[in-house]
Amino acid sequence: MDVGFIGLGHMGSGIAGCLIRAGHRLVAWNRSPGPVQALVAAGAHAARSPGEAFDTDVVFSMLARDEAIEEAVIETGALDHARAGLVHVNLATVSVAFAERLARLHAEHGVGYVAAPVLGRPEVAARGELNVIVAGAPDAVAKARPLIESFSKTLWPMGEDPQRANVVKIAANFMLASAIEVMAEAAALGQAYGVAPKDLLDVVTGTLFAAPAYRTYAELITERRFEPAGFALPLGQKDVRLALAAGEAVNAPLPIANLLRDRFLEAIAHGDGDKDWSAISDVAFRHAGLR
Amino acid sequence: MDVGFIGLGHMGSGIAGCLIRAGHRLVAWNRSPGPVQALVAAGAHAARSPGEAFDTDVVFSMLARDEAIEEAVIETGALDHARAGLVHVNLATVSVAFAERLARLHAEHGVGYVAAPVLGRPEVAARGELNVIVAGAPDAVAKARPLIESFSKTLWPMGEDPQRANVVKIAANFMLASAIEVMAEAAALGQAYGVAPKDLLDVVTGTLFAAPAYRTYAELITERRFEPAGFALPLGQKDVRLALAAGEAVNAPLPIANLLRDRFLEAIAHGDGDKDWSAISDVAFRHAGLR
Amino acid sequence: MDVGFIGLGHMGSGIAGCLIRAGHRLVAWNRSPGPVQALVAAGAHAARSPGEAFDTDVVFSMLARDEAIEEAVIETGALDHARAGLVHVNLATVSVAFAERLARLHAEHGVGYVAAPVLGRPEVAARGELNVIVAGAPDAVAKARPLIESFSKTLWPMGEDPQRANVVKIAANFMLASAIEVMAEAAALGQAYGVAPKDLLDVVTGTLFAAPAYRTYAELITERRFEPAGFALPLGQKDVRLALAAGEAVNAPLPIANLLRDRFLEAIAHGDGDKDWSAISDVAFRHAGLR
Amino acid sequence: MDVGFIGLGHMGSGIAGCLIRAGHRLVAWNRSPGPVQALVAAGAHAARSPGEAFDTDVVFSMLARDEAIEEAVIETGALDHARAGLVHVNLATVSVAFAERLARLHAEHGVGYVAAPVLGRPEVAARGELNVIVAGAPDAVAKARPLIESFSKTLWPMGEDPQRANVVKIAANFMLASAIEVMAEAAALGQAYGVAPKDLLDVVTGTLFAAPAYRTYAELITERRFEPAGFALPLGQKDVRLALAAGEAVNAPLPIANLLRDRFLEAIAHGDGDKDWSAISDVAFRHAGLR
Repeated sequence: MDVGFIGLGHMGSGIAGCLIRAGHRLVAWNRSPGPVQALVAAGAHAARSPGEAFDTDVVFSMLARDEAIEEAVIETGALDHARAGLVHVNLATVSVAFAERLARLHAEHGVGYVAAPVLGRPEVAARGELNVIVAGAPDAVAKARPLIESFSKTLWPMGEDPQRANVVKIAANFMLASAIEVMAEAAALGQAYGVAPKDLLDVVTGTLFAAPAYRTYAELITERRFEPAGFALPLGQKDVRLALAAGEAVNAPLPIANLLRDRFLEAIAHGDGDKDWSAISDVAFRHAGLR
Repeated sequence: MDVGFIGLGHMGSGIAGCLIRAGHRLVAWNRSPGPVQALVAAGAHAARSPGEAFDTDVVFSMLARDEAIEEAVIETGALDHARAGLVHVNLATVSVAFAERLARLHAEHGVGYVAAPVLGRPEVAARGELNVIVAGAPDAVAKARPLIESFSKTLWPMGEDPQRANVVKIAANFMLASAIEVMAEAAALGQAYGVAPKDLLDVVTGTLFAAPAYRTYAELITERRFEPAGFALPLGQKDVRLALAAGEAVNAPLPIANLLRDRFLEAIAHGDGDKDWSAISDVAFRHAGLR
Repeated sequence: MDVGFIGLGHMGSGIAGCLIRAGHRLVAWNRSPGPVQALVAAGAHAARSPGEAFDTDVVFSMLARDEAIEEAVIETGALDHARAGLVHVNLATVSVAFAERLARLHAEHGVGYVAAPVLGRPEVAARGELNVIVAGAPDAVAKARPLIESFSKTLWPMGEDPQRANVVKIAANFMLASAIEVMAEAAALGQAYGVAPKDLLDVVTGTLFAAPAYRTYAELITERRFEPAGFALPLGQKDVRLALAAGEAVNAPLPIANLLRDRFLEAIAHGDGDKDWSAISDVAFRHAGLR
Repeated sequence: MDVGFIGLGHMGSGIAGCLIRAGHRLVAWNRSPGPVQALVAAGAHAARSPGEAFDTDVVFSMLARDEAIEEAVIETGALDHARAGLVHVNLATVSVAFAERLARLHAEHGVGYVAAPVLGRPEVAARGELNVIVAGAPDAVAKARPLIESFSKTLWPMGEDPQRANVVKIAANFMLASAIEVMAEAAALGQAYGVAPKDLLDVVTGTLFAAPAYRTYAELITERRFEPAGFALPLGQKDVRLALAAGEAVNAPLPIANLLRDRFLEAIAHGDGDKDWSAISDVAFRHAGLR
């Protein structure tokens, strides 16, 4: 199949690699040329514009911010170059407001639109073992499904309205940030009593919270290993902002998201804006006079 | 070995059963006589007073509230009946202030004191597969260890100061309550967008949060199965109160615990005081106009 | 002097009336024609477009939302019709981001720009006794000052950067909303002990908090007089949103604003979106099971 | 009239002075003898025990903490020395739980009990211009009223149940602490935009918030004049704790009190425990990276 791909960051490159290995003809575009060349070496074709990537059967995009999608897909007029029957699979975590707008815009251009935000870090993407939350019109999802399966472990179908997949993804990231915060508070409490963060978090992640998310972040918090950033703090801040905006649109208060919002602001105000988002854990320690 | 046991609720009875099956001579006391008779049928001896249970080699106590321990152990003068060399293993979640007082009091009476709060529900206790957080003087811990092992899967040593084990237990329960709250907020957000709580929580507990705590409580929240109470709401409230008190004593703010405190108050104010503590999840839905 | 005026809501009409009474030639524009006719009867001239109101010596605008200013002033090209030496005095509470953009845009068109958000309700505006927070280039402020004085009791100068006046106004409204919330919490606490809200709030507003803001809102809260809306709940919500956005831009957490944000969402979710913003006080009572 | 007085701190000494000047025979007791001697010089009689002060017609007490009252009044058996018909007027801010216990205890001893917590600082007390919140049985209040009037500007009657006066006083102090916090957040926001705290707070305390409480604390915050402590930070912390405990007893959440609780903890953790309670304002600035 002819497959387009837009946005070759760490996540995008890994996923695009899976699609090539699955035997598809990949037409790739990226704002900066470096990642495209790497992919061309693996067999991809370089697109000269986003529109060229849209002249395929299915086009994927993986762009971190709403504005990046707006620039690459909307402002370049890529939708006008869409091949008949094209389905656009948006892998990114976008705001629910933007998700709605994208769905409408694609409908107007007769292009299928599937929201397919992913759970997993770059190395998981490269191995083709992502969890993918999928929502869109049944025929569009059906067309994209075999391609999505080439880089995922599990597909989680969320119905026809693309916005629904985004809400679930936003909720998942909100829960991740919350887990960081609650581990930080618990570990700061322990440390105030002389219990090392590692000792305390080993107990909980070895028992009730023996889940990947907790284990990964317990380690980062314990060792204060915030650099290099696995997931940059401003991206985490963006996701909390998306959760708050999603809640605001439907009058759903999210008090823990409010707290997280402030943790990110304070972390940035104290110079941690370039670190991993788990660096917000320092705030709880600092408030208790432990930093 | 002669083993005393005080406090035969659901947890205590299960643990005491393990100790009998391990071949020990058990001297059991409980405020109400019913649970003692059940245990006598399994081979235990009924103590006429807490003091009699203290006339053993190792005595365990499992009493839910500080006041209950105060009444049974301190006010009855049980410590004055302690056999020479006795070690008292306190399995309950007590406040850190009371933990300190108990340690001091036992030292004054020449009785060993080990804090050994447990993680796990009654059915896990009955199977002898608890996780036990242990802190106390090395010789006291050494004497109690084989007995503790008879009802536990893993011992988590936390050093010599009994208070440390209590802080870790309190932190673990605080994290559990937080997990309930964050799932509730996430699920309420999803529902406001038409995503069923089960669909949303299935994704997160099937991926990032594939941990026992999340799975158990996701199910209760999803089905609103708050009765009968597996862990009664006022006990959960007590544990959050312990966390806040522990934080206050060392000037460690715990903003999520503050939020939880209010969730419990509001749940009780709305008539849910007799339900499972996961009923606090209704608060997030109600605030969003979804109940 | 030739004075333009854009935006004739309750506040704007009162202020415009003062300017006419002070002897100025007023050129007024409003989206809907009704308020303009009323003003024409008092001696004003009706502008056919915002641009006509900009063909004056000083033009005032009083539009409740950033979007309304964008439509009336920017999208209509009104700035292109500015008379040489024109100063635009923006009386509205705008976001700090938009304040910055407006200042830049006016500079590009060679038009003076003064931010002059006002404190006071419509009846105070009509009497010409507003408090006005003023920031802008000294010469622009000097030109506008006599006009501003015709409808104000006190001018509060805040320096040259227009944004500074907006931050102060946003902070003042944030403090007002906070006063409502804290009175609500205190009154709900009292009521739970059988003390009528009026009895409790009479004590505090008769002593420590004998300030206009507290007295006005204590009365509304006490009598639950939320309709008709003196200041509509969505406008209060907007102001809290502006405070949060202002804080976010400079990494300043505002935890009470977070709380207020949720109060507004919950009030709207419970059907109070058309009431006075003091209706958020019901939330504290409802949480305590008192509604 | 024979009047007893227990507790001669800054507040108590000022009030006792008013009672002497009003022509009453004052029998004064204080834990440390210094303040008693000063009062004797003004005409008072020194009591050798609290009981002696209870052998009068009306006895006042002004002791800062529940524990101090417990020691001086309950543990010394002072109630057993009460003259027939004695009325005890408790001027202190006590917890609602202790207020209830005191009322019961006095009833058992046939002693009248009036709760009369005061609003005002020491200099106001010395001038006899306090605001006094009064609750108790009508005949007890009637007997004490002329005495209370000798040191107060206004009496605020709150009915028969003494607890009610305490709730109102606790609510008032909670509102004061909240005012400090909200001014701190607003001023920190302003400072992040280059507006001096004094400039911003002058606007609000000169307009909407032209109340004594705001003016006094705006000045302390602006000048960071936290030493010497006018009202010590731990006493403010105690009052917030009383508010939370009062709320907990009746299931009334007080989210702003939660926030304040954390501000006090953090201030103490950062070494400000000996300062004026307005020093909690530094926390908002520090979180924004401004300290």
